This record gives sequence, C-alpha cells and structure tokens, in this order.
Amino acid sequence: MPDAVELIRAKRDGQTLAAADIRWLIDAYTRGVIADEQMSAMAMAVFFRGLGPGELRTWTDAMVTSGKRLDLGSVPAPTVDKHSTGGVGDKVSLILAPLVASCGAAVPQLSGRGLGHTGGTLDKLEAIPGWRANVSAREFVELLTTVGCVICAAGEDLAPADRKLYALRDVTGTVESIPLIASSIMSKKIAEGTRALVLDVKVGRGAFMRERGAARELAQTMVRLGTESGVQTAALLTAMDCPLGRAVGNAVEVEESVAVLRGDGAGDLVEVTLALAREMLALAGIDADPAAALADGRALTKYREMIAGQGGNPDASLPPARHIKELPAEESGWLRDLDALAVGTAAWRLGAGRARKEDPVSAAAGVICLAKPGERVGRGQPVLELRADDEARFGRAIEALDGAIVIGTEPPTAGSAVLERIG
Amino acid sequence: MPDAVELIRAKRDGQTLAAADIRWLIDAYTRGVIADEQMSAMAMAVFFRGLGPGELRTWTDAMVTSGKRLDLGSVPAPTVDKHSTGGVGDKVSLILAPLVASCGAAVPQLSGRGLGHTGGTLDKLEAIPGWRANVSAREFVELLTTVGCVICAAGEDLAPADRKLYALRDVTGTVESIPLIASSIMSKKIAEGTRALVLDVKVGRGAFMRERGAARELAQTMVRLGTESGVQTAALLTAMDCPLGRAVGNAVEVEESVAVLRGDGAGDLVEVTLALAREMLALAGIDADPAAALADGRALTKYREMIAGQGGNPDASLPPARHIKELPAEESGWLRDLDALAVGTAAWRLGAGRARKEDPVSAAAGVICLAKPGERVGRGQPVLELRADDEARFGRAIEALDGAIVIGTEPPTAGSAVLERIG
Repeated sequence: MPDAVELIRAKRDGQTLAAADIRWLIDAYTRGVIADEQMSAMAMAVFFRGLGPGELRTWTDAMVTSGKRLDLGSVPAPTVDKHSTGGVGDKVSLILAPLVASCGAAVPQLSGRGLGHTGGTLDKLEAIPGWRANVSAREFVELLTTVGCVICAAGEDLAPADRKLYALRDVTGTVESIPLIASSIMSKKIAEGTRALVLDVKVGRGAFMRERGAARELAQTMVRLGTESGVQTAALLTAMDCPLGRAVGNAVEVEESVAVLRGDGAGDLVEVTLALAREMLALAGIDADPAAALADGRALTKYREMIAGQGGNPDASLPPARHIKELPAEESGWLRDLDALAVGTAAWRLGAGRARKEDPVSAAAGVICLAKPGERVGRGQPVLELRADDEARFGRAIEALDGAIVIGTEPPTAGSAVLERIG
Repeated sequence: MPDAVELIRAKRDGQTLAAADIRWLIDAYTRGVIADEQMSAMAMAVFFRGLGPGELRTWTDAMVTSGKRLDLGSVPAPTVDKHSTGGVGDKVSLILAPLVASCGAAVPQLSGRGLGHTGGTLDKLEAIPGWRANVSAREFVELLTTVGCVICAAGEDLAPADRKLYALRDVTGTVESIPLIASSIMSKKIAEGTRALVLDVKVGRGAFMRERGAARELAQTMVRLGTESGVQTAALLTAMDCPLGRAVGNAVEVEESVAVLRGDGAGDLVEVTLALAREMLALAGIDADPAAALADGRALTKYREMIAGQGGNPDASLPPARHIKELPAEESGWLRDLDALAVGTAAWRLGAGRARKEDPVSAAAGVICLAKPGERVGRGQPVLELRADDEARFGRAIEALDGAIVIGTEPPTAGSAVLERIG
C-alpha cells in the first residue's frame, strides 16, 4: 500500500506519481484515510510542481470515479453543457440554457453556489419564489427530456472527492493551481454525463485568471481532459475586466436575464451568450441560429418552462431591496472603466455573496451598473445603484468601489468580449 | 487581524511575511485557531519559498515564546549544551554530557525520542533499569548544580508551538526544510536556557542532510539564530556515512558508551566526542583537556552520578536480547564500507526504533558492527550481529542490509570523522 507521506515527498521533489498511487491517494482522501493536513500539503506541492498530462488525467478520473457518473443515455436530444470559471455579473447560464434548449439541444447543468466575489447560478435562481435547486437524478433526466434544460445542484454522490478537496483548497491557499482547477471543474462535468461541453474561461481582473496566458493554459488543459474522457469540449476565453451586463447580484441578475430573453440586453452580455450558444449548438450537431431564437421569444418560453419545471413562478415579482443608494459620476465625460473586481466585492459586501459556505445570501442585494464603459456620463449622474437589505452594509461596499469608476475625456477603445476560441 | 489564507498565499507567492503576521501565525496555530491543514500548506510553501533571515528570527522567537524559557541563572557553572541532528549509532550525548561536566561545565540537555532510522537519546537511557527521563524544572536546576549534567525529556511547556508543528511536519512531508529544521531545533535549545551550544550537524547517507552544502547551510543558519538570541553557538559538521562506533540500538549503545568512558572505544566515536567536548569547553571558557578526563576515569564517575541522579542503577545489567543472528562476510578482504542508513533501518526493524510516536521500543534490539570500515575480514567471519526480542524481525532487517557491507581488495581511504567547523 502506498504511503501518504512518501507520495507528498515524491510530488514535492518533482517526481511523477504513478497512476495507482494517484488513485489510491484520491480514494484514501475521500474515505478519510489520508488526513486533511496531508492533502493540503499535497495540494501545495502540486501548486509548485504541477501535474503532468498523464497524472492529471488519472487524478481527474479518480475524482470522477470517487462517485457516480450520471447516465444521460435515455435523453433523446444531444446533451451539451456550459461551464464558466466565474465572473462578476455572469448570469449567462440563466439565458443560455433555455436558449440552447429552445434550439433543440438538452442542457444538463449541475451548478454551484457562489463563494467570494463571483456569484453562483443557484443563488441567483433561488431569488425566484418557489424555485428549488435540488432535483433527484430521475427528475433531472425527466426534465432534460421534457423541458430540455435544467440548472440544479449537484448531488452528494457527484465527484465527492472534488467536493472535499475543493473545500480544503479554499481554506489552505491552494486554489490557484491550473491542474487543480482543471481537474475540479472537469471531474464534475465528466461525472454529470454530458456528451459535449463548452467552457467559458474568464480573463481579467474580475476573474480567477487575470492573465491571458494562464487562462489559455487552463482552457487547453480542460479541453484536453474533456476530450480524452469522451466529452466533446471547446472553450472560449472571454473578457472579465468590467462586469458582464449591468446587474450584479441575485434577483437583479434574474431580472436582467429575463430582459435579455425579451430582446433587451447589454451588448457584451448578448455577445458572450450568443457566442457560447453557437459553440454549444455546433458541438451538439444542431444547425440553428440562436439569435433568432432569442429574438422570436422561443428562448423566453423555454426559460419559463425551465423555472416552472423546478417549482418556480416565472411571473412572481422578486424580493425588492429595502435600501438603495446611488453613486454619482464625479465629473462629466466618457465612462472609460468600471472595475469588475471592485463591483463584485461591493455586491458581495452588500449581501449578494457569502464569506463561508454556510452563510445565507440576500436575494435583493447587489449593484446595478447604470452606465457601462463606452457611455457618456454627466457630473452628478448616477453610475452605480447599490441595493441592500441592511443600510449598514453600504459603508464597506462603497469603500470597495474606491477608484472603480474611471471617467475621462476620450471614449475607451471598444473591444470584443469574446477573446479567443480554444478546442 | 491577519487571515491565515492570505498569509499562506503571500508565502506561496514569494512575499516576505511581516513580523506581526508571523507571531500571529505561530500563536494562532498553537492555540488551534489556525487548523492543521492550513499550517501544513504553509509549511509546504515555506519548503519551496524558504524564510528570509528576519522571518526566520521572528518565527523561531515566536516558537520560543509560545512556552516558557527556562532560567538557569542560579546554576553556578557555565552552561553549555550539545545538539546532534541525528545519526546512526550516535550515542555521543551519553559520553559527552558527563565528560564535559567532569571538566567543570554544566550540561543542561533536554532531549528527544527517536523516530525513524536514527535513535533517540532518551530511548537509549531508558534501557537502564530505574532511569527516568522526566525531571521537573526545579529538579533540572538542582541536578545541574549538584551533578553538573542532566539528560531528560523536555516539558510540555517548552516551545509547545514546535512540538505541534514538528508532529505535523512529520506526517505531511514537510520535514526537509532548512528554515523549519533550524527553527525547530533552535527554539527548543533557546527555550532550554543554555548559555552556549555546540551543534553536531551530521552529513552523509545516514543523516538528515546528505549533502555537505545543505549541512553547512543548516549549520550556519542555526549558528546565526543562536548567536542572535544570546546563545553562544558553534557547529561541527561530522561524517555520517557509516554507523558511529560499533553499536546501534538502545542497551547496546549504553554499553558502548560505558566502554568509551572506561577508555575502550572506537576511533571515530572518540574523535567526534572529544572534538565536541573541546568546542563546548571553549564556549564555556573552561581550559581543560577532555581526553585526560576520559582517560583518568573522571568522566565515568560523573556518568555514574548522572545516571543515579535520575534513579538509574549504573551497575545493573541491561536487558539481553532473546535472539541473536550473525551476518558473515561473503568474501575475504578489506571492509571498505558499511552503509549507515541500511544499518540504522535494520536496527529500527529489529525493534530499536519506532514507526509512530506512541510505539514502544525494544531495549535489547539492535545491531553490533563487529567490524568497522578499514578493518580486514575473512570469508565467513561475522561482520554484523543482529539482536531482537522477536525472531520474526530478522527477515526484514536482513533485507534492509542488502548491499550494505562492501568488501574489497584495497583498504578504504581513511578520513577524519570531523569534517568542518562553523561558528
């Protein structure tokens, strides 16, 4: 039997771990035979030494086989999912899943909750009265078959090794490692049973990956892992320097998603959503124009079915914020920049996000970007609208926004939100 | 208040930690506020990034002040201690403490138990009927004053941060880090209250430090830490490729130590012991010849006082081994080499050492090197004598010795066991 300390030392010293040893490590950690303090030392050694392609494949597969792999073979439509590495105002899933389903694909999206300054899709949807994130495996397949899309929480038996390791990495400073990020994301997506997958790898100061080179490496790593595991995988690198769209929070992002589905959305949000939809449909082998499905209301209809299918009332009004505060422009000019990390942190401090897994989130809290970079603002005109249930939260949120709004005499250079395709 | 994850990330990313943050880290870890999995990730980050001189000084001092620092001010003789980084057959303390005390210094030796292939001084002395390792702080000072030397276990309140961190490093593959080794050793020695300290840094395949360069760096680091904390510190690098002396185990090493004190010892063992004694006496400001004290029986008398002072009977016969097995030379010639790591591992497997802190050790188990490198052996002549309480242990011990005995037609080049002085 391998020895945990020997394996940690081997990785620490730059050796390649044998496949059997990696499988033992992941299994023993999941069963509690390897202690948290040993696995965190291993994670830090991996941070410094990396994992070779073969090690990473085995590591990821061991995380998949730590639990059950869903079988979506009975779903008649081709399955295709999307995963985003997380950004500020990233409500794309809420629009994309019904949009792609309305074009004939089945979108099986097991999703997560937010931690830190990027929000979680489930937290957003839970702002809708009646909507529930928990869906049984049977119901999951049924909804995929009848509605064509489902966004729900992953069950306890989906890649439990990752569940445990993810929580550990979060408290041990071992999150920012490409092989650990890639294996975490891909183990869940492979276990989910989707046939195809499009990755939205965010790049910029509001994203996990700040550098384009690192984002590209992560995307390439995940595309390779997916492909090798029989999941057709492609990736887009998309910009995350400014918030995506206008709303950052939970209810406010649901409202903005519905606005996009009604044909009224911010340019960058629509651009990223359609680009991802085209990739998903291409992988699913479906020849359809998602822009048309968005324009003619089919996607909105599908969204309403999706929400209702999980007990939500798509017509219910969402919880309003008790307190609203506007941040005005300090001068007139072009809005040149709006710092996504600052806005995300402000929304988080207003109550939209959580500091610990167990914390509740506020449905109503968040930030509305009343102006987007590239628009003109007049002095005193509100640029951001802050919403909170508790007035005391405004102070630290406003602190986070110090320097976040940049106004100048020239308009910023306009750029595409979709930077690059990998796959 | 600092945040553990932020500090781990800072060290991981190569930043210098602020003194206040290091103090908080060590204190919070000792109090259980920082979890083991966080501290092991930090230790691994330190393994890769190191600690700068200022960081290391603060880290060590924080470990000292995590507990009580002994006050030996009332001891009339100058206090001077020795610490060895651990080797195979390293029974030097048993001879050295009474030898130096017989020359007029006071030797306050807080010692440890063995883990892995190098034995612990306390385990060796516990082979003597009646001898006890636990001594109160008051008794410690009394014995130093009346006898002049004491070798005993460190109390719970001596550098408790190190106690906790040492156990953690042992199971997380973070032992082999020069700043972590140096701060661990020096925090205990500084807290012990000795005025002067000589370090025996072992180099070679039977030692912690296999490379002379790394051993020198460790020695220099510790000498600097000691000096900066007001402990006069010097170090010798000594060879640890072959076992020191002839006996490896517990009772067998006590017997060999007594033989040296009677004037009958292996050359390398006597050489290292006298070199360390000279360094200690020089730091204590005592002009005495330890070779004379060894030759005229003064050191032996002091040894008997030391053993009796802690309840031991120096005349008692030590527990004999139930089973003995000899390993003969496979050919005639010069014994060129005897692998210390192999012999240490064999002794450990025979029962002389422990795999876990809680395990008991066998007093009688061990290995006797009937021949030492540089001596002639005839084919079939016993080279090693293996001793065990349990016959079943011979198999794996003999496996460890595969290739350990090297016989050739030429004698090996003779070299000094004392390699270099640092300080």
